[in-house]
Amino acid sequence: MAQPSTVSPATLLKDELDIVIPTIRNLDFLEMWRPFFQPYHLIIVQDGDPSKIIKVPPGFDYELYNRNDINRILGPKSSCISFKDSACRCFGYMVSKKKYIYTIDDDCFVAKDPTGKDINALEQHIKNLLSPSTPFFFNTLYDPYRDGADFVRGYPFSLREGVPTAVSHGLWLNIPDYDAPTQLVKPLERNSRYVDAIMTIPKGTLFPMCGMNLAFNRELIGPAMYFGLMGDGQPIGRYDDMWAGWCTKVICDHLGLGVKTGLPYIWHSKASNPFVNLKKEYKGIYWQEELIPFFQSVTLPKDCTTVQQCYIEISKQVKAKLSKVDDYFNKLADAMVTWIEAWDELNPSGAKSAELSKVASK
Amino acid sequence: MAQPSTVSPATLLKDELDIVIPTIRNLDFLEMWRPFFQPYHLIIVQDGDPSKIIKVPPGFDYELYNRNDINRILGPKSSCISFKDSACRCFGYMVSKKKYIYTIDDDCFVAKDPTGKDINALEQHIKNLLSPSTPFFFNTLYDPYRDGADFVRGYPFSLREGVPTAVSHGLWLNIPDYDAPTQLVKPLERNSRYVDAIMTIPKGTLFPMCGMNLAFNRELIGPAMYFGLMGDGQPIGRYDDMWAGWCTKVICDHLGLGVKTGLPYIWHSKASNPFVNLKKEYKGIYWQEELIPFFQSVTLPKDCTTVQQCYIEISKQVKAKLSKVDDYFNKLADAMVTWIEAWDELNPSGAKSAELSKVASK
Repeated sequence: MAQPSTVSPATLLKDELDIVIPTIRNLDFLEMWRPFFQPYHLIIVQDGDPSKIIKVPPGFDYELYNRNDINRILGPKSSCISFKDSACRCFGYMVSKKKYIYTIDDDCFVAKDPTGKDINALEQHIKNLLSPSTPFFFNTLYDPYRDGADFVRGYPFSLREGVPTAVSHGLWLNIPDYDAPTQLVKPLERNSRYVDAIMTIPKGTLFPMCGMNLAFNRELIGPAMYFGLMGDGQPIGRYDDMWAGWCTKVICDHLGLGVKTGLPYIWHSKASNPFVNLKKEYKGIYWQEELIPFFQSVTLPKDCTTVQQCYIEISKQVKAKLSKVDDYFNKLADAMVTWIEAWDELNPSGAKSAELSKVASK
Repeated sequence: MAQPSTVSPATLLKDELDIVIPTIRNLDFLEMWRPFFQPYHLIIVQDGDPSKIIKVPPGFDYELYNRNDINRILGPKSSCISFKDSACRCFGYMVSKKKYIYTIDDDCFVAKDPTGKDINALEQHIKNLLSPSTPFFFNTLYDPYRDGADFVRGYPFSLREGVPTAVSHGLWLNIPDYDAPTQLVKPLERNSRYVDAIMTIPKGTLFPMCGMNLAFNRELIGPAMYFGLMGDGQPIGRYDDMWAGWCTKVICDHLGLGVKTGLPYIWHSKASNPFVNLKKEYKGIYWQEELIPFFQSVTLPKDCTTVQQCYIEISKQVKAKLSKVDDYFNKLADAMVTWIEAWDELNPSGAKSAELSKVASK
């Protein structure tokens, strides 16, 4: 690797990372993850009926929040947290007190690498987050900080230090993360290609961020990880993580932070119902044709130096430019502001620490 | 794959592709490539002493040009073709009459995929060139046009048609393409990681293009593939392909063309001498710190609609903005103009076909 690593991630971050899991059912899937997750603290966000009892396998250290808890803790500001949608997971990011978050869906199991070995997804995410990113120039041999790799000929030396990594986006074997139309057209397609790569998504490039297998540095980027208004009472679903990804990427680009994608893989066990998904997605499918050009053209002023400031600025631009697409975006822009207010309330030193952790202006 | 392929690349392009090989020695390495290369026409550009006889294994269809031939064909314009440097290979691009070029170094052998099967690098390049690229948005499952892959949820449908692919940049197992300082620091490092991916380099992102294992659509981008002034009488070497890559990427971005990197791998057999390389590279190593910001900021006017027009415009900006770095860039800017003049002389319908093949303006 380009720079010798001084960390031993296997045992690292035990007290600095929370695992956030949104769910509506018993968490039997944790049994499979026990060897990897048991040392960590879990934050479980129970979606749907709060009177339902969610069983967690014994031996795990966790806190669980249902809708009643969310309403109690946030009061009127709880309106920014989605209901009956896994977007509710972002409440877990807000109540965490840790530096790092890993979030995973409860239908994701341990995948195997090509040698048949169980993949410790969390360990790989931690490695990704603890090594720099390289958003300003493309390295053709992928992550230059991995063992056996480096920067190739022609890579400017001034850029080899990289920038802090804010996000590590992991992938999925078996059921790929397709939209409803693609699911309908290719019901039998499975992802069996293990691509042994981690890469930085270049500055200025947007990507579809999936929340199924995602880690991030909460201190660096947490307030941007708002999963929007989805599900019950809202006109769309399944765009929660996409929305968070677009906002996050624009802010990372502005603040000089890195976003990686690639390893680790998890095993995504079961395709969700494509007919239900189509109903949730169909407005998003045409709205996104306007959302992508919007996010591609967002520019943030230089005096936005914290994630919160950047996020509030984006909310203003959403209101100014996307409300013509649908009145929903007025509501969403307001919720974005509420989210930041709630975040700062629960994280009183947040604004300050975001300022301190800021690494480079655009 | 996202769109059903109607091509059978294995036997395709036999009469539409030339293989360009720069060399100073007998081409014994072709024996290993015989099953894959024999159906194609070779253009061999002999570097160095023109009186030396280069032996080509029997059975290959080839034309060979030495320095005397280059001088005879180009006359005074031959000054734009480098001598005693593999940059001379671009003469082969110029004299080709085919639509596609594959260029490979004579120390590159057939690599094996993880199952132990010989990799037909040329076939993979052809597949890459014949399927679209996706420069405007990142697909997390890599090339969406491969079997078993597609666009993921959140990828705008309006962008799924992609754009024509102009360049396919292949990689190297065994000896990685490192600069001299990295070679010196890590003499034993070998690339053994087979990454089963092809991806589009996003619009606006520069990359280090290596000429060792490279294919391109000559009609779409040929005139940008000038490998500059290197070697004998010049202050630098080993930046020939880098220069071509930076110019090519900027022009592809402007014209709406795609650049892919990843598969196929070749087996790079032997590291070049790092001390010799350091001597060739050292000026480039500090010059590139100014070249990268220059290329990152190049903008081409809308009325540049052919590769030639774009390239001449870049040559003007090189003269205006890089001559302060070193007088060499004045000479290089002039050579860029000479190159285009020579290209158009040898390809009289070139300007017109470049116009016709233009797909989209910025």
